Amino acid sequence: MMKKDFWSSSKVAVIGGGSWASVLANVVAKNTQEVRMWMRSDEQARAINSTKSNPTYVKELKFSEKVSAGSDPQKIFDGGVQAVLWALPSSATREQARMFSKYMSGEEIVLHATKGIEPKSLKRISEILTEELPTRRIGVISGPNLAGEIAKNEPAATVVASNFSEVVQAGTDLLTTERFRIYGSTDVIGVEWAGVLKNVLAIAAGAVDALKMGWNTRALLITRGLAEMVRFGVVMGAKESTFLGLAGIGDLLATCSSPLSRNYQVGFQLVQNRNQSIEEMIGKVGGVAEGVQTTRSVWEFSKQHKIYMPITEAVYRLIHEKASVQDIIHGLMTRPSQKDSEF
Amino acid sequence: MMKKDFWSSSKVAVIGGGSWASVLANVVAKNTQEVRMWMRSDEQARAINSTKSNPTYVKELKFSEKVSAGSDPQKIFDGGVQAVLWALPSSATREQARMFSKYMSGEEIVLHATKGIEPKSLKRISEILTEELPTRRIGVISGPNLAGEIAKNEPAATVVASNFSEVVQAGTDLLTTERFRIYGSTDVIGVEWAGVLKNVLAIAAGAVDALKMGWNTRALLITRGLAEMVRFGVVMGAKESTFLGLAGIGDLLATCSSPLSRNYQVGFQLVQNRNQSIEEMIGKVGGVAEGVQTTRSVWEFSKQHKIYMPITEAVYRLIHEKASVQDIIHGLMTRPSQKDSEF
Repeated sequence: MMKKDFWSSSKVAVIGGGSWASVLANVVAKNTQEVRMWMRSDEQARAINSTKSNPTYVKELKFSEKVSAGSDPQKIFDGGVQAVLWALPSSATREQARMFSKYMSGEEIVLHATKGIEPKSLKRISEILTEELPTRRIGVISGPNLAGEIAKNEPAATVVASNFSEVVQAGTDLLTTERFRIYGSTDVIGVEWAGVLKNVLAIAAGAVDALKMGWNTRALLITRGLAEMVRFGVVMGAKESTFLGLAGIGDLLATCSSPLSRNYQVGFQLVQNRNQSIEEMIGKVGGVAEGVQTTRSVWEFSKQHKIYMPITEAVYRLIHEKASVQDIIHGLMTRPSQKDSEF
Repeated sequence: MMKKDFWSSSKVAVIGGGSWASVLANVVAKNTQEVRMWMRSDEQARAINSTKSNPTYVKELKFSEKVSAGSDPQKIFDGGVQAVLWALPSSATREQARMFSKYMSGEEIVLHATKGIEPKSLKRISEILTEELPTRRIGVISGPNLAGEIAKNEPAATVVASNFSEVVQAGTDLLTTERFRIYGSTDVIGVEWAGVLKNVLAIAAGAVDALKMGWNTRALLITRGLAEMVRFGVVMGAKESTFLGLAGIGDLLATCSSPLSRNYQVGFQLVQNRNQSIEEMIGKVGGVAEGVQTTRSVWEFSKQHKIYMPITEAVYRLIHEKASVQDIIHGLMTRPSQKDSEF
């Protein structure tokens, strides 16, 4: 069993140069000897090394001296690393994992922090990584973790889930600080799907806010949205209780409350500009709003498998049909009464 | 079985003159023939009758012509009513129920909307009403229902729970509108305790906001606070799933987000004025902050029965001890790691 002592003299690779990758690198630096960030852009890497900051993605952050950045995978893995934190967008994951696999020994512990799925296969990130990387000791980090707030050292917590208790322990040792708590889990499926499904509800939350509706409506949306996440997740093999924890309701709350989320922005714009197409909308919001693709994938799967997901269907209609928002809400509100315990 | 047709020619008594009583009276008016509100103050009743509004408590509301108000219990029950909605503060419930019992036939369906417990006995409102009223057909209404928002006709939903399916059906028929959905439940214990316990966390939410902490911290507080509510509730005989529904996480979300809540205000003031006593604080906030008494009752019970409730304990310390807020938070954040599924 690796101990905290082990990690204090370890080297860790962080794959990705975005806000969450940067903040994770800095958190891990507190518990390790050296953290090496990989990013595609050599220019960005050099800027991080010279300024010890990453202002484009997370202006609140001041990097530890232990963190360095580079764009050459050979150098990142030079002499070996003991752990890899994976924080690339889901769309880049399979291709980059294939590329990185030749630099890895297979002894590394891998924790990913990517919230997304492969569109057609509906494969989770840990499944893709297991297929492409030499290591089997893979886990996932997921929770209510707005990067800027953690950079400011505000109290927060996350879930580390893996089928291997050794990986959960490693994640706990690597990430625990006085301001960041780790909760362990063995429900990899639940933790990964929760992080994916909440993006659908973030679109809905943006729409509700654009309508200037209040806290009752938002609480209704989140609570009954959570019930849909549970229904879907359980069919995929997840445990119900995971959706009630930090990776479930916790992350859902933080995401639906942050107007910075691209998914939230898409929902907001869909209401404000009801006549524009989703393509125009996405162009405006910029970057990848994973929730749009997820909504289609989840909605199609739920139809096939007869999983009752009225809010997901409403978001799908909001994106792809011309129905008025008021009509969509009226449809949701006037369904037959349900039992509260119907998950 | 009573049908919607039955209710459309029925008379309903609403006991209480506050914001929620007023809004409930107006909702029920849509599905019944006549709604009679009882309140202690004859002056307030006459003002409601003449102005069709209740500006002190809920300025957004315009009463239906079917709603009238009075202070004479005899007149409220004159000729009989088919349902009673009970919305008095918990502290007034036993005494007033005893008083009203002599006007009731015992055939009325009673739904209460009071969130509180009897301090020493820890009896729930439905237990008190069952002891004091002639009727046994009693249920509870609870959910994310900020009264002002429902008065503005924003979409919302609530839970009606009872041991009698007839009562759940009656509550559904009486309260359903195109903008207000009813979810039925048989878990009376869970629905009542959820409404009580969330007030402890509303104090904590106020404290966190006074510290200007962000969404991660708030999501952490609410999610792990929910876990404590589940732990406590299950010992009291509640079902876990109730805490994940509208009366649980739903109400918790709305309450913790509303700076108008007196409990939230107490938490906020406790941080802002760390040197003042709780008595001074309550004087400032005004009215009844049920959460302060609830925190003591729940904390004492949890100690006796060894229910792990670190956030409740922290709120208790915030109220009753002089420890600094930062020390209390540090204590919470540096506990040993836990499993995410530990409810």
